[in-house]
Amino acid sequence: MNTFGEHWSFTSFGESHGVAIGGVLDGVPAGLRIDFALIRSELERRSGKGVVGASARAKNEPDEVEWLSGVMDGVTLGTPIAFIIRNKDARPEDYEWMKNTYRVGHADKVYEQKYGIRDWRGGGRASARETAARVVAGCMAKQELAQKGIAIKAALVQVGAETDPDKFADVIAAYQKEGDSIGGIVECRVSGLPVGVGEPIFDKLQAHLAFAIMSINACKGFEYGTGFGGVTQPGSAVNAISGGIAGGISDGTEVLFRCVFKPTPSTPKAGVKGRHDACVATRAVPVVEAMTALAIVNLI
Amino acid sequence: MNTFGEHWSFTSFGESHGVAIGGVLDGVPAGLRIDFALIRSELERRSGKGVVGASARAKNEPDEVEWLSGVMDGVTLGTPIAFIIRNKDARPEDYEWMKNTYRVGHADKVYEQKYGIRDWRGGGRASARETAARVVAGCMAKQELAQKGIAIKAALVQVGAETDPDKFADVIAAYQKEGDSIGGIVECRVSGLPVGVGEPIFDKLQAHLAFAIMSINACKGFEYGTGFGGVTQPGSAVNAISGGIAGGISDGTEVLFRCVFKPTPSTPKAGVKGRHDACVATRAVPVVEAMTALAIVNLI
Amino acid sequence: MNTFGEHWSFTSFGESHGVAIGGVLDGVPAGLRIDFALIRSELERRSGKGVVGASARAKNEPDEVEWLSGVMDGVTLGTPIAFIIRNKDARPEDYEWMKNTYRVGHADKVYEQKYGIRDWRGGGRASARETAARVVAGCMAKQELAQKGIAIKAALVQVGAETDPDKFADVIAAYQKEGDSIGGIVECRVSGLPVGVGEPIFDKLQAHLAFAIMSINACKGFEYGTGFGGVTQPGSAVNAISGGIAGGISDGTEVLFRCVFKPTPSTPKAGVKGRHDACVATRAVPVVEAMTALAIVNLI
Amino acid sequence: MNTFGEHWSFTSFGESHGVAIGGVLDGVPAGLRIDFALIRSELERRSGKGVVGASARAKNEPDEVEWLSGVMDGVTLGTPIAFIIRNKDARPEDYEWMKNTYRVGHADKVYEQKYGIRDWRGGGRASARETAARVVAGCMAKQELAQKGIAIKAALVQVGAETDPDKFADVIAAYQKEGDSIGGIVECRVSGLPVGVGEPIFDKLQAHLAFAIMSINACKGFEYGTGFGGVTQPGSAVNAISGGIAGGISDGTEVLFRCVFKPTPSTPKAGVKGRHDACVATRAVPVVEAMTALAIVNLI
Repeated sequence: MNTFGEHWSFTSFGESHGVAIGGVLDGVPAGLRIDFALIRSELERRSGKGVVGASARAKNEPDEVEWLSGVMDGVTLGTPIAFIIRNKDARPEDYEWMKNTYRVGHADKVYEQKYGIRDWRGGGRASARETAARVVAGCMAKQELAQKGIAIKAALVQVGAETDPDKFADVIAAYQKEGDSIGGIVECRVSGLPVGVGEPIFDKLQAHLAFAIMSINACKGFEYGTGFGGVTQPGSAVNAISGGIAGGISDGTEVLFRCVFKPTPSTPKAGVKGRHDACVATRAVPVVEAMTALAIVNLI
Repeated sequence: MNTFGEHWSFTSFGESHGVAIGGVLDGVPAGLRIDFALIRSELERRSGKGVVGASARAKNEPDEVEWLSGVMDGVTLGTPIAFIIRNKDARPEDYEWMKNTYRVGHADKVYEQKYGIRDWRGGGRASARETAARVVAGCMAKQELAQKGIAIKAALVQVGAETDPDKFADVIAAYQKEGDSIGGIVECRVSGLPVGVGEPIFDKLQAHLAFAIMSINACKGFEYGTGFGGVTQPGSAVNAISGGIAGGISDGTEVLFRCVFKPTPSTPKAGVKGRHDACVATRAVPVVEAMTALAIVNLI
Repeated sequence: MNTFGEHWSFTSFGESHGVAIGGVLDGVPAGLRIDFALIRSELERRSGKGVVGASARAKNEPDEVEWLSGVMDGVTLGTPIAFIIRNKDARPEDYEWMKNTYRVGHADKVYEQKYGIRDWRGGGRASARETAARVVAGCMAKQELAQKGIAIKAALVQVGAETDPDKFADVIAAYQKEGDSIGGIVECRVSGLPVGVGEPIFDKLQAHLAFAIMSINACKGFEYGTGFGGVTQPGSAVNAISGGIAGGISDGTEVLFRCVFKPTPSTPKAGVKGRHDACVATRAVPVVEAMTALAIVNLI
Repeated sequence: MNTFGEHWSFTSFGESHGVAIGGVLDGVPAGLRIDFALIRSELERRSGKGVVGASARAKNEPDEVEWLSGVMDGVTLGTPIAFIIRNKDARPEDYEWMKNTYRVGHADKVYEQKYGIRDWRGGGRASARETAARVVAGCMAKQELAQKGIAIKAALVQVGAETDPDKFADVIAAYQKEGDSIGGIVECRVSGLPVGVGEPIFDKLQAHLAFAIMSINACKGFEYGTGFGGVTQPGSAVNAISGGIAGGISDGTEVLFRCVFKPTPSTPKAGVKGRHDACVATRAVPVVEAMTALAIVNLI
C-alpha cells in the first residue's frame, strides 16, 4: 500500500503536518557510499527553490534528512535504511478551516469516506510533501543505476500550449498573477539501459514505468515511443520506432516517455487559501526521475 | 512475472504454437456460477470474428476452453481454477522462416538476447494469442464485479485520424488493401464503482489501471480524466473533472480512461509473411475490458 | 494462496478426483534440460510403489506428466512451465458416502465451513494427491540446485518408537494389520549450500524451511540443529552446533533439520473406508525433499 | 526481507547501537485507539525487567517509543504508522573488541561474508534488540485481534530439564552463577480464533505460525498439536487431537503450539564479554506472542 518495489523496496510514511515524513529502503546493497550532496540538491529542486510560481512553503522549508539506520560512516550496511525529514514549517493552524471542508479537486472527501477519519492538516498524507521521501529514495536508486552506466534525465517540455522552455516562466507567472494554475508535460529519457530489462507478459517495462509515474499526484497520462500522437501513422511508417522497448523488454536503445500533470485545483481563483503552486509540473520533474529510477532498479 | 494480481491472482502460460495456452485463477470465491456463454462470446470478440481486417488464424480457430480444476458442476469451489485452450490451428511450419530471423518491431530479438533461447514458432509467448487467456480470466472478474453492480464497457473511438465509428471499417479495409496497418484509440468506462477503491500513495487506482492496460501488447499510452489534452486548460476550468478518481481513490463517479494501440509492424508491405491484423486496436477492446476487470477485482 | 515462492514461483492446482492435478512453474531459467527420468522415479517414490503399507490407489495409478508449455525439445524456454497429471484412477463413486459426512481428523468440515462448498470426492483439494505436483516442481528445483553443487537428501529416521530403519517395514505392517496407522520422523540434509543463503530478520533460512515443510499435509513439527532435544544442554555445550545456519543465514556447513508426520486418521479401525496409508511419513520423504528444494531455490 | 506480512505489513529497521531501532506498520485500519500502556508493559516484559538472569542493558534502558506518523490524538489514521525507539544506552565502545572478532554461535561472520561489511557494534542488526520493534507492532496486532475476541497467551513451560515454573528462577540463577546459559520451551495458546483462518495448500495456518516463530532469534524448533511427542502414538489414539487446525485451516478450537529456544552462546564461560542473558527463552515469551499476533492478523 505504501511500499513500492519488491527488490529495492521503498516504504513511505508521514503526514504533511505531522512530526515527520520519511521512508525505509530495504534491499539496497551493502557498500554504497551515499551521495548526500546529490540528495540535498534534488530535494531543493523538488522544493521549487528558484522556480517561478512555486508555493511559499516550498521555499521556506529546506528539507533536512535524518538517517536512522542502515548507514555507518556514510556507507550502506545492506540492512534497511530508515530516514526522516521533520516538518519544521508545519502550520496546522493555517489549515483549521479545512477541518470541516472538502477542497474541490482534492482527495479530502474520498479519504474521509474511505477511512472514516482524516488528517485534515494540509492534506495530511495526500499532500505533495510526501514526494520528498520519494526523491531521497530515488537518489539512492539513481546512484546504484549510475554505477551500471544508466542515466535518467527528465525535463519540462510543455506548459499549457507553450513548448518553448525559454517562455515557460512567463506563462506560469501570468497564470499565477491571475490566481490560476496551468498543466504541463514532462519528458523523460533513460540511457544506458542494457537489453533485457522487463518481463514479457504483465511485468512489461512500460507497464512498470506507467505504474510508477501514474502514482505521482496530479499525473493524468503516460505514453512512450510513438504514444497517442502515433495513432495517425500507418504501420509502414512507425515500424522502427520502439521507444526503447520491444515486447515489454528494453532493446538497448534510449527509453523515452512522456507524462502530463494537471494544473493544481487549489487556487486563489477557486477560493482556496493556503500555499500553492501555479504549475506543479515544474516540481514534478525530479519526482518523475525518482520514480523512474525506483521502477528500473526494481526490475534489474 | 506471468502472474497478475495478489487477491484474484491470474497466472498465464502457453506458447502460440505449443500444446496449449491457458491460465490459473487463484482467489476466486467459492460459489460463483461460471457464465460459459459470456466467455465464449468474449473469446469470439477477441478472435476478430466478423471484424474487418482481422487475421485468418483468428477467424479459423474457435477457442474452446477446457476446465481442469476448481469447478464442479459449473460452480467455483474456491480452489484454483485452471483452464487451457489448445492450439488446434497451430502451423509451426508457416513460421520456419522465423527461426533465424528477427522481425522488425517485434520482440523476437530481445527474447533471444534475454533468454538465450526462444520459441520462434509464431512469436511463441510474445504472440497476441496469449490475450485469449486474459479474456477468460477477465470474464470471471467481470461476473464477480457485475454482482457488485460494477460494469466495464470499452469501445474503439478512433482509427487513424477517423473518430466516426461508422467509418472505421472502411479506413481499416483501405489500409489492409495496401498491405499496411493503422493504430487506434480505445476508451473505457467503469460505472458503479463504489467510493474508496485504490490506495492513496503508490497503489493509486489510476496506477493500477495504467499497469494493467500498458501490459497489453501494442499499447503505447494511457490517460484518464482530462488526460494529455487537458494540458492547455487552466486549473480554474478543469477543477471539477476528476475522471472518477481523486487522490488515487475512486470518488463514486464514472471512471473514464483512454489508451492507444500502435499499428502492427508485421505487414505484407513490410515484407512479413504470416497471418496478421490491419488494426489490432479492434481486437484489443475485449482485452482492455478484461485487464480493467482484473485490475479492479484485485483492488476491491 | 496456492503459490509458493516469489522467484521460482510454483502454483499448484487440481482436485483429487477432478480432471487433473497440475502446476505452473514461473521463473525457471531458460536452457534447463529437464530430467524426465528423475521426475518419473520421484513420482514413483511418492506414490509408495513397493512401500509397505502404502494405499492401493498409490500403487495402481502411475503418474504421467503432460507438459503444456514452457518447454521445447525437452529444454526450458524461460516462460512459465505448465504441466498436468490426469486423475485416471479417480473413483468418485467410492466416495459417495463422504458427500454428507465429515471424516474425523480431516479437513472436510473446515473446508465446507470456510468455502460453503467442497469437492467431497476423496478429499478434493485437501487430498495428499496434490503433493505429486509438488514433487514435479521440486525435481526441477533440485536439478537447478544440483548445477550449483547443492544436494538435498531426506530419509525416514523413526517410525513410532522405532529408530532402526531395517525394522520400519515390520512396524508399519503390524499397524496395517490392525487397521491402524503410525507416525514417523523424516530427517533432511542439505549439502553444498554456499554461505549467505537466507535473510537476517524475518526471512531467515530456517523460517523459510519451516514454512515449506509445515505446509505438507500431516506434518506436526519442524526442528533444526539442536532442536527440541537441545533444551537440556547448557550453552557451553551446544555453542558450536549451528545446524548449518547462523542468524538466519547459511554458514557453509551442512544444514540438517527434522520433521514429524502424524499417523493418518482415516483408518479402517476408525471406521473410514477408502484407500489409505499405514504410515504417511514413508511417502512424505520425496515431498520433504521437493519442498526443501523449492524453498532454497527461491532464496538463492 | 525486513518486512513481515502483506496485509498488516510490518517493516523493521535499526541497528542495536545505531541511532534508533523502529518500524513501519502499514495496513492498520483507521480508528484504532492505541493502548500505550499495553505497549509500555510489553516492552518492559521483553526487556527482562525483574527477570532472573536478564542482561544489564535490558534493565538499564527503558524503551521509549516515539510515534512519527499515522497517529493523530492517539488514534490511527489508516496511513502507515512509523515509530522509533532510540538507543540511549548504546555503548559501542564496549564492543570495540568485536570489530575484528567473530563470536562463536553468533551471526557476526556470516554477515560479513554475506554483505562484505557489518555493523560490529553489539551485533548490529542481528542483535535481539530488534525484537523490541516486533513487540510494539505485535501489541497493535493484539489490540486488533482482541476486538475480534481473539486472545494470545504464551508462557515458559520448560527450562533445561525443569518443567515446574516455580523452580525456573533457581535453575537459571544456577547457570548464571556458572557463567553459563540454558535453553527453554515456550508454549502459546490462541483462543477465540474463528473457523476458517489459513489456506489449504501452502499458506496453512501452521506454516505461517512456524514461519513467524522460527524468525525469532535462537528459536530451534516449532511443533503444534501432538508435535514430535505424537510420533509414538497410533492413529487410533491421536485421531481427535487437532491442535486447533485441520488441513491448514483453524477449526474453531484453541490453537496450541510450542517452540524451543537454545541457550545464548555468548557467555562468560565461553569467553565472551558484554551484557548477556542466562536464559533468552524468558524474554522470548512476549516476542512469541507478538509474532503470533502478527501472523494471525495477516491471515484474517
